[in-house]
Amino acid sequence: MSRKRNLYLKTIPVEEAREKYFERVREIIEPKTESVPVIDSLDRVTKSAIYARYSSPLFNASAMDGIAVRAEDTKGAAETTPVILREDQYVVVDTGDPIHNPFDAVIMAEDIVETEEGVKITASAAPWQHIRPIGEDIVAGEMILPRNHKIRAIDIGVLLSAGILDIDVIRRPEVAVFPTGTEIIEPGSEIKEGSIIESNSRMFENMITVAGGIGHRFPPIKDDYDEILKQVSDAVDKYDMVIINAGSSAGTEDYTVHVLRQLGEVIVHGVAVKPGKPVILAIVRGKPVIGLPGYPVSAYIGFENFVTPLLLMMGRRPESLSETVEAHISKRLVSSLKHKEYVRVKVGKVGDKFVAAPLARGAGAAMSLVRADGFCVIEQNSEGVEAGEKVNIELYRSKSEIENTVVIIGSHDLILDIIADMMPEKHNNMFVSSTHVGSMGGLMALRRGEAHMAPIHLLDEETGQYNIPYVKRLFDEPMAIIKGVNRIQGIMVKKGNPLGIKTIEDLARPELRYVNRQRGAGTRVLFDYRLKQLGISTGDINGYEREMTTHMAVAAAVASDSADAGMGVLSAANAMGLDFIEVAYEEYDFAVPVKFLESPHIKAFIEIIQSDEFKQKLNELGGYTCESSGTVINV
Amino acid sequence: MSRKRNLYLKTIPVEEAREKYFERVREIIEPKTESVPVIDSLDRVTKSAIYARYSSPLFNASAMDGIAVRAEDTKGAAETTPVILREDQYVVVDTGDPIHNPFDAVIMAEDIVETEEGVKITASAAPWQHIRPIGEDIVAGEMILPRNHKIRAIDIGVLLSAGILDIDVIRRPEVAVFPTGTEIIEPGSEIKEGSIIESNSRMFENMITVAGGIGHRFPPIKDDYDEILKQVSDAVDKYDMVIINAGSSAGTEDYTVHVLRQLGEVIVHGVAVKPGKPVILAIVRGKPVIGLPGYPVSAYIGFENFVTPLLLMMGRRPESLSETVEAHISKRLVSSLKHKEYVRVKVGKVGDKFVAAPLARGAGAAMSLVRADGFCVIEQNSEGVEAGEKVNIELYRSKSEIENTVVIIGSHDLILDIIADMMPEKHNNMFVSSTHVGSMGGLMALRRGEAHMAPIHLLDEETGQYNIPYVKRLFDEPMAIIKGVNRIQGIMVKKGNPLGIKTIEDLARPELRYVNRQRGAGTRVLFDYRLKQLGISTGDINGYEREMTTHMAVAAAVASDSADAGMGVLSAANAMGLDFIEVAYEEYDFAVPVKFLESPHIKAFIEIIQSDEFKQKLNELGGYTCESSGTVINV
Repeated sequence: MSRKRNLYLKTIPVEEAREKYFERVREIIEPKTESVPVIDSLDRVTKSAIYARYSSPLFNASAMDGIAVRAEDTKGAAETTPVILREDQYVVVDTGDPIHNPFDAVIMAEDIVETEEGVKITASAAPWQHIRPIGEDIVAGEMILPRNHKIRAIDIGVLLSAGILDIDVIRRPEVAVFPTGTEIIEPGSEIKEGSIIESNSRMFENMITVAGGIGHRFPPIKDDYDEILKQVSDAVDKYDMVIINAGSSAGTEDYTVHVLRQLGEVIVHGVAVKPGKPVILAIVRGKPVIGLPGYPVSAYIGFENFVTPLLLMMGRRPESLSETVEAHISKRLVSSLKHKEYVRVKVGKVGDKFVAAPLARGAGAAMSLVRADGFCVIEQNSEGVEAGEKVNIELYRSKSEIENTVVIIGSHDLILDIIADMMPEKHNNMFVSSTHVGSMGGLMALRRGEAHMAPIHLLDEETGQYNIPYVKRLFDEPMAIIKGVNRIQGIMVKKGNPLGIKTIEDLARPELRYVNRQRGAGTRVLFDYRLKQLGISTGDINGYEREMTTHMAVAAAVASDSADAGMGVLSAANAMGLDFIEVAYEEYDFAVPVKFLESPHIKAFIEIIQSDEFKQKLNELGGYTCESSGTVINV
Repeated sequence: MSRKRNLYLKTIPVEEAREKYFERVREIIEPKTESVPVIDSLDRVTKSAIYARYSSPLFNASAMDGIAVRAEDTKGAAETTPVILREDQYVVVDTGDPIHNPFDAVIMAEDIVETEEGVKITASAAPWQHIRPIGEDIVAGEMILPRNHKIRAIDIGVLLSAGILDIDVIRRPEVAVFPTGTEIIEPGSEIKEGSIIESNSRMFENMITVAGGIGHRFPPIKDDYDEILKQVSDAVDKYDMVIINAGSSAGTEDYTVHVLRQLGEVIVHGVAVKPGKPVILAIVRGKPVIGLPGYPVSAYIGFENFVTPLLLMMGRRPESLSETVEAHISKRLVSSLKHKEYVRVKVGKVGDKFVAAPLARGAGAAMSLVRADGFCVIEQNSEGVEAGEKVNIELYRSKSEIENTVVIIGSHDLILDIIADMMPEKHNNMFVSSTHVGSMGGLMALRRGEAHMAPIHLLDEETGQYNIPYVKRLFDEPMAIIKGVNRIQGIMVKKGNPLGIKTIEDLARPELRYVNRQRGAGTRVLFDYRLKQLGISTGDINGYEREMTTHMAVAAAVASDSADAGMGVLSAANAMGLDFIEVAYEEYDFAVPVKFLESPHIKAFIEIIQSDEFKQKLNELGGYTCESSGTVINV
């Protein structure tokens, strides 16, 4: 216990940290500019207002195909008193051709008749008719774009028309990114126990791009005070900003804050936000230097809270507010008064209302960011929200995408991923979103109107029938079952089955470490049912209390030797290279309220699970049969 | 009249054209893929679902800083019965450190006390507490991303963590862009009368980038049938798509359709849309080839209707629907049953409602696209909309930006551009939008609740007072005037004043060509007032009927010799290098309902026009005084 730990400064609220730090940064940063060719200026930001050099059109131009005339020569022309124009009284013009003195009007090709004597017209022309006057579109000297304007494709066209070839733009801020840590390894290196694949820096590099900057990622630095100090000090001279990841926490090898105190001034250490507390905001020789935590979700939230707005400020880009939606939260979220919390959620539209289902809350749950549709932000002064309460969700995906998504909540199976993968390609702009809370959890969500369907595999002990008895018991409204697949459930054990497990009874051996599924999961219901049949008490199962929420998590626990056995499906065992002892085939189906059956995305869903491609993928996975997939049974 | 014109095929509705063409294209295009390093895959689209190679964490890892223990060793520990752990019963761990057998729990650093005999704990540890099990975040074999997924920064982090180094993505479609036309010149070339600066191809190149493709722009080709044929034919072999601009119309030198008929099959020629009718959709040797019209707005709309969705389809990207808003249209829009029309509009939020003011409708009005906040789409089966009617607007800008915009409708002055330029920098994320309809038009818009303020310069003939009498007469609700600037009005004439114009009376000389402002413009009111004072009939002014809507447009007409004189402000004359004969100083002020005075963006507006930077810019323009700018007078 000789290693030293850092003491946090008292954590301060996000908004206060931002205000305190940004005010200091604003004083020191100078806007840098550069000149770029207009044709390469897409997405750059103007330094100052841009004024037209030329007018457009550059000359008085015909707006039609026809003839240019002197309006005076056409006076009095009418059906009954046509006027004939001689060859020297007109000139043929196409759209865009210049109109020269003395001509001051254009007559459309459709309105003239060619005759032996000349061109006959039957209506007089008003002066300047069908002529685009010089400068009609752009007048030389007029402002085309204001300062701090992000250049679009249409702007590039207009700038060129107005005679502008080069423009001054704000330089993209250049950011050095330092991954640190003795345990981290480069992606692709050999993996040893204790290794962590370095990935945050590459995420940052790309987040920098999205915020209009240029990221320069350095190779990982070991936890070596002097080395970190030297490299950060060099980078501060060369770049506009420096990011250090991680070492920003209070661990024994967290040097970042000490390095930054030696090099410059630490303005903030520790922010009252979860995940993402260990943030360091410093200034070194006039440059912002930011330490971000190592957990991917903390790193992401720290970056979005501090680095993104700073880069936008330096690049003179407006902060784009994410779209928000009011949604009903599907379960109670307790949060501490000590911090603001960002909970990742899946969002769907079920009937008339938006619903949000919370995902894994841990700081290490990077997949929760990949899978999320948005954030539910619980403010620091709130203790959380109750199930069903209305909350504001900051969206990642567009509202229209969310409205076209089938919301599936219930038991997990790998086929849900396959369906989600197939849906957008087979049915343009339709999506599937699934949240895994077990079969019973899914039916409860369906009852509360939070999902379109619930995938379930619930064996009724009375009848021995799957699923239908549960749906009948639990719902008043008309319900249907969309038949899914039959799948084999079994015991997953290590390759070669070293403990010689053959039956459920073997799982009660005291030296054996079992890993269980959570309450309400169909697999747990099946396991409990079998134990009861065999007269085995749950207390005799070593590890009965250790709960995982998916088949794959159970398989991973067995594969990594943190458990010896667990129940699950064959496809999960195959994916992790485990042996598998068959226990029973079960029916994995989709419960759905009848009122949703006719909606286009549910119809699309049914088409998918009836398709040959789907059936072929099931074969590849193994352990499934699917004779009746997509059949609808009214319950 | 010997030159030949093309005959259009019968135009067909946009949707029908798209369906007909895209169905054919879908049959012929093969998705091309390539492998890219994950670290360079931002914004690329996955070819197929991506599965994790490794789990994350790769091992059971500590979730806290503290000590790893065997849960069994901690049994019974409590405040009254502490347990002492010997050195061989624990190991110090930082967050992320691996947990080895036989340890199976972590106790937080805060919860232990170091003593002489060992580490004292006062609570037992549950098995697996504070341990992140292997695969908690990502389980090897699980699907990380589905196919056709656009890769974000967070995805890159997770892919690397899951052991993925390279991924297969859809290749960006490569598009050849051919500008054609004998009259077009490269930007930067010497300008002759009749020249048109080629800019559409650069706009296209950048629109291709935005739609996920790669544009290859070729140098302009003259209107030469054989040359166009040869180059297009070569490009079809090398690229995934070819765009020809323009020559798609029915003019005498529009060869595109003939070339495409010779090379392949023309599926559609002419679409019922305004602007943008002359579109050619063809297939040549299995590649889509599209002819687009030459007018910039037509070109843009043709591209957005046909090329963008085609590129998204080829790149497997979802069509992103633009945000829409329901707004009240500020004036009547008549449209033909012959076509669908895209009207560019400025959009603002005034009080509780969104209002949309139409911009120039011409196909050549590229600036209307730059200035637009969105499109009002008038469907083919509609004859238009009435003033005040609710319409759906497809937005370009975000709703939040529009909500932070001061909506100004009224008389035009160059200072409006200066304010619009200064606002976003001085007041973060606040904007100014102005539409120019003359002083009276502005007051009418204000009365209808379509603007926050109206810039006006209206001389009351009775009292000789500016602005206040008009506002008093026209409004029932409490109104204020924000003082703007005093500006000099005068007669703009060509450099050196070749016609020797000295006074308003001179403008009645019959050989002289006057150019007027539109009805309701303050400048026109002033002119009419002076004519009346002098007893000159408007019929005596040659060109009284020729109306322009801005000072700059009048100045441009004089500068280009399409008129000899016009009334306007000194800054416009200076901008176009004209001589200027002073007529009168006038008061250019902002009428505003009292209820808006306290809103933050109106306050920001007032701060701007009181600032030193604003006053300095006025000095640079010339012809203004501004002693009382920003003073608020209750009317």
